Formats: sequence, structure tokens, C-alpha cells
Amino acid sequence: MQGNGLITLLTDFGLSDPYVGVMKGAIASIDPALRVIDLTHQIPPQKIVAARFALASAIAYFPPETVHVVVVDPGVGSRRRAIAIACKGAFFVGPDNGVFDGILDRADPAIAAVELTDSNYWRTPNPSTTFHGRDIFAPVGAHLARGVPFSDLGEAIAPETLVRWDFPDCQIGSTQVSGCIQYVDRFGNLISNIPGDAVGERSWVLSFDDRQIPSGQTYADVGPNEAIALVGSHGWVELAVNGGNARDRFGLEVGTRLDVILDFRF
Amino acid sequence: MQGNGLITLLTDFGLSDPYVGVMKGAIASIDPALRVIDLTHQIPPQKIVAARFALASAIAYFPPETVHVVVVDPGVGSRRRAIAIACKGAFFVGPDNGVFDGILDRADPAIAAVELTDSNYWRTPNPSTTFHGRDIFAPVGAHLARGVPFSDLGEAIAPETLVRWDFPDCQIGSTQVSGCIQYVDRFGNLISNIPGDAVGERSWVLSFDDRQIPSGQTYADVGPNEAIALVGSHGWVELAVNGGNARDRFGLEVGTRLDVILDFRF
Amino acid sequence: MQGNGLITLLTDFGLSDPYVGVMKGAIASIDPALRVIDLTHQIPPQKIVAARFALASAIAYFPPETVHVVVVDPGVGSRRRAIAIACKGAFFVGPDNGVFDGILDRADPAIAAVELTDSNYWRTPNPSTTFHGRDIFAPVGAHLARGVPFSDLGEAIAPETLVRWDFPDCQIGSTQVSGCIQYVDRFGNLISNIPGDAVGERSWVLSFDDRQIPSGQTYADVGPNEAIALVGSHGWVELAVNGGNARDRFGLEVGTRLDVILDFRF
Repeated sequence: MQGNGLITLLTDFGLSDPYVGVMKGAIASIDPALRVIDLTHQIPPQKIVAARFALASAIAYFPPETVHVVVVDPGVGSRRRAIAIACKGAFFVGPDNGVFDGILDRADPAIAAVELTDSNYWRTPNPSTTFHGRDIFAPVGAHLARGVPFSDLGEAIAPETLVRWDFPDCQIGSTQVSGCIQYVDRFGNLISNIPGDAVGERSWVLSFDDRQIPSGQTYADVGPNEAIALVGSHGWVELAVNGGNARDRFGLEVGTRLDVILDFRF
Repeated sequence: MQGNGLITLLTDFGLSDPYVGVMKGAIASIDPALRVIDLTHQIPPQKIVAARFALASAIAYFPPETVHVVVVDPGVGSRRRAIAIACKGAFFVGPDNGVFDGILDRADPAIAAVELTDSNYWRTPNPSTTFHGRDIFAPVGAHLARGVPFSDLGEAIAPETLVRWDFPDCQIGSTQVSGCIQYVDRFGNLISNIPGDAVGERSWVLSFDDRQIPSGQTYADVGPNEAIALVGSHGWVELAVNGGNARDRFGLEVGTRLDVILDFRF
Repeated sequence: MQGNGLITLLTDFGLSDPYVGVMKGAIASIDPALRVIDLTHQIPPQKIVAARFALASAIAYFPPETVHVVVVDPGVGSRRRAIAIACKGAFFVGPDNGVFDGILDRADPAIAAVELTDSNYWRTPNPSTTFHGRDIFAPVGAHLARGVPFSDLGEAIAPETLVRWDFPDCQIGSTQVSGCIQYVDRFGNLISNIPGDAVGERSWVLSFDDRQIPSGQTYADVGPNEAIALVGSHGWVELAVNGGNARDRFGLEVGTRLDVILDFRF
């Protein structure tokens, strides 16, 4: 497995400063033929849990051997490790702070990980203490994307030592599945950590705060401004309002408990 | 006519979620050599009228045979058609909900349209019910851009059945032209649906609410913070404030009536 | 020196309108193989001083002979000159309004400048009076990037006639360096115009309003939500809050005076 020339970037840098452009400049300085796709740069500052979801929900849609660079890095300059991971047919580069937890969820015997100790693949052997995205992660991603062997990037580390995100698992029972909101998107859709597989073809409702929200296949299965629960395009149970905003309607947040009641009949 | 390898994307997805990146991943998965340009992803959620204007004002500046993919799609999952259109030397892919009305404005005998019924050009034959941008529109755009014949995408449909946007036309008289605001841009410039051709080389003012705003060639033709009417770079009469924000100054909105008074002398 | 095929764009157009996409369409219409990187499009409308900083802090990270196109242009349509500059191994295209002042700061005998008088390199000989980005700057940048000789773009002008930005210099003394805030980034970090070289390896604190903020190497050198002064990744002294927002904490703005006290002991 080696890089395919394509890099994605996922950061909390926003788009109002030139920081993202500078990372792309660092990549182009290594090889101007590399292609770069932005996943998003509007992760709320230092919100590892949001970056974790955005990354995990996106990677299935990219070509094999794409390099995903993540820079949501509140511990930059501290002793958190700078790492690269190879798994699921893709590469990941960034800080070892839990942001990669979502791609490690399902057991995969083929995970490999390295600490980025070889400064030959950095922009400079004396990187800034505050901008490893520019000086370490983007350059390492560029070298990886153009074919440098993964194991050359640094010292191998045991995958079980990678930092995990302490996110409540969902509890799957025979008639009820309990989980929580793990992400709120731009439309105000509330995305749970309950996998669509848990409801399958059964009838179900979504329950919280003594409310029951009917489930459907698509937003338009209910009338305008009515609430609906469905399995979203990312594969998770979500709560939405047709033509409206479920976050504003219900005032729920990341971490709020949601229950799926299976075989429910109103 | 066949695709030139270039795709533009126009959506209401915003940039805070990975949805746009995922569409680009779906395109790269079909052909990583395709080039993608973002028109904008910040159409207000589900505002077809704003997307209609953004698309219509942009297409003249792209190379011939560019593929324009539009995903402003409040009816996703309902029975609205997924379509592609060939006209004006370009291709258009998206939902049949009026978003393409602006490019159909001027009579063009060479318009062709198809419904996207051939799932071989989708990402999967079982697309998500909520994210046709990823599973249908971006993949179809990618195939079209790399040379798949337009007529292969699905069943031909009669152009006169395409959904139109019920936008008030402007009324062109000998001494007055009446129209309305069709778009407000980031600078707060209020862009009407009165074409620049309607004023030509004549003297004119813009009138609303018993006010008359003088016309000029460029913002700097009036002093700082003074209002001016002019023919904008998009070809429409607009109301602006030099160094300021006309929307905030006048409190006008999309749909507000504006009148051009021709041969006016203060 | 000639263009390397790479163009950066820096504007105040925002991303909600199709203006940036249209500039990229104009570039692709000249040569679809040119590569474009966004520095940022979210310079506050018409804030030349912010664009000046963003440009100056970014250019070192791009390959030699990159073309940087800047469109922060409150005087569009007035008599301000449209120019190109060659210096520091790169090219710059945009309005002559002070936005390039930051790249001219350090003396460079090899600066060359031209006024963009040859309309063969424009999109049209009759450019819009309000959108020179689309009709002049992006097309000229495209031609330059693909190898057109710099001197062909128009009449040579004397570098000393280029418009400078009247920014207060910082005052470097033996025990104190006085400067001011020149930029506030998305994280609320307050970036001064005091160069990191002015503190070197000495001990120092940052002082304002009778406060003294300790200095460190990285954000994590202080506890969560504590303030720290450091030399940022851009090379300037900055004031930050670990895991927080210094602008919100201290209520300071661009232009506020900051003092570095050297050899300070608490």
C-alpha cells in the first residue's frame, strides 16, 4: 500500500486566516502535482470529538490509499505524539489525541502506526512549536501521498497505545437501543451514535424527554416543519425536521441521550 | 459536445461539515484527474432562488463544456426528478426544482434534458434517500465530465416540462423599468432582475420608497458611504453603498420592488 | 524568473457568493491546467491592513515563482493603478493600494513593478468597472503563471512609487520593544508587529494596561485558560490564551499598543 497522490485536510483553522493556504503551500513545495481536497476546516476550535466524527464519516468515499491529514491539535507543542496510521486501506496523519478514534472503532488486525520521528519528512528540522500542521503533518502527508513508504516516517508504535476518545458506546438491546448525539450538522440535524444496522428493517421510533418521533426513509416522509427520525446518509440514526432545524427545535446538544424503541406502534 | 474534465459544485451544504469533501471524494473515486471548482456552498439552506441566481451569473466565465453540479435540494428523496441539462455550451446536473430556471431564461432551441435513470452512473444502485449529491449528482457529473455521452445518462425528457421558478419578470417601459431584488451579496449589494441592457447609455436613477438614487459607473463615483445605482459586473442593475452595505442601509430584501426611471434629471 | 503554474488567491469576497468561483473559471478559461490555492477569501470587506498581513505571512511557504493574486480593492473603478510586482522570487498581482506593503518591507534591490496596461492579458478589453478580480487580476495572474514574461504585462513603474501602508513601525530598544497588534486570527490570538528576532533567546514578558504576561515556547507552557506570550508560527510576538481566546479575554484590537519588556524577572 502506498499513497495515491491525493491528500485530504481536516482542521479547526477556519477559513478566515491563511493557515490552510499555507499548509497547501507546504504540500505544493514538496510536489506541486499532489491533489488536495478539503474535508472541512470549520471544526469548532479544538473540538476533537467533532473532528473524530467528520473524519470517520468521510473516509469511505475516497479512493483507496488516500492520505487524510488531521490538524485539530489543542496539545500542539506538548508531549502528545505526532503519528501516522495505516488502516482500512488509507493513511492518516496527525496528533495522537483521540481524533483517529472513529476510524479505529471496528477491529482491524492490519492497523499499523508510527510516531513521526524522522525529521527528513518535515518542512524543517526545527518546526514551530505552535503550527505542526504546516511544519510536520502536511509535509509528512505530502511525502506519504507521493510514495514514501509508511514505515520510513518514524518509529513503529503499538496500535493499542493510540489515544482513544472516551465516547459512550450505544447499548443495543432486543427492543431498545440507547445512544447519544455525537454530531450536529449545518442543517441542525442531530446525528446519534446509533448505527443504522441496529434498526434494520424493523419499525421504530426515536425517544427522548417523553417524546416519540416517528421514523421514515427521507425528510419528505413528513410534512413541512415536522420532525422525523431516519438513518442518515452517514449510516447513523438521526433526528431531523423537514425543511427546518432539529437543533433549534429541540434544544439538544452533543452528548444528549437518545433511545430507539424497536417494533413501536403508535 | 462532451465534458472537458472540469466540474463546478454549487450547494447549500456550508463548509462546516464534510459533505462537500465527500462529494469531491466520490468524484475522485471515479477519476482522480477531474478538476473541481467550488461556485459556493453557502447558499442559504434550501433557498432555490439564491442558487438560481448564483448559477446563472457564473456560467459565462467557465470554459465550454464544463459540467455544473447543483445540490440545493429540499425535495431530496421525494418524487422530484434528478436531471441533467445540456444548453448554452455547458452541462448541468441536479434536482428538477427550479434551480436551473435562470439558465433557461433566454430561448435556446438546442436545450436537451434527461432524467438520471441509469444507475450505472451513480455511486451505488441503492443511493441514500437524503444525500443524492454524493450518490447521484456528483458521480453523474464526474462521468459526464470525463466524456460519457449526455444521452447515456437516462431517459430524454421534454425541456418544456422542466420546473421553472416563478420569479416576477421585470417590466420594461419607455421611461420606466420595474423589477425587484433577486439577490443580496456578501457586501450587501442589492442586485435586481433589471438587465443592464434596459438602461443602455441613457441617464437614469433607481427609485424605491420615494427615494431616488443616482446612477454611475463604479462605486467610487460617489463619496464614501453614499448610495449609488449601477450596472454590476453580473450585468444587472444593482444598488450599492460606496464602502458600505446597502442591505443594512436600506433594509430591503429579495423580492422588494425597484424602479429604474429613465432620462431622469435631478 | 517565470510563472510555475501555481496561483494563490487572496480576497475579501467571502465564500457565500460565486465571485471566487468565477475568478477560477476565468483562470481555467485561459488554461485549465493551472493550479489554484486559496489563501483566504474572508478578509473583512475592504480591510487592506488584514490582507497585507495575510499575504506577507504566507508567501514564504509557497514554491518559488508562484503568482499571488490579491483582490481587496475598495478603490476598484477609481484611478488606483492595477499592478504586478516581482520580488522575493515570487509574483504579485492586484491593486496598488498598500496591500503589497508587507512584502516590500525589507529592502530588496531586485523589485520590479509594472502597471497592467496591456489589455491583451485581460479577460476583455472592456472590463467591468466593479470586478477587476475577474476581468483583469485573475486573467493576468493566469497568463503570468503559464509563462508570459512579466515585462509584457504593461508599462514599467518605479518601485518607490508603489503605495505603502502607513503602519506604525515597532520601536526596538535595549530593554523594551514597543509595537502594536497587527492581526487577530480565528483563534483570537493577537499578533503584534514585533518580530521574534527582537526577543531572541532573552527572557521577556509582554506588557499592556499595567499587565505583564509571561512568555513561553508553546500554548501548553501555561495552564488551561491562562494567557501566554510567545513567538508565533508566523514569526511575530503574539498574545494567546491556552485553549481560549485572547481577543475576547482582553478586549484588544488591531492597533492596540503592546510592549515587550526584555530581561524581565517576576
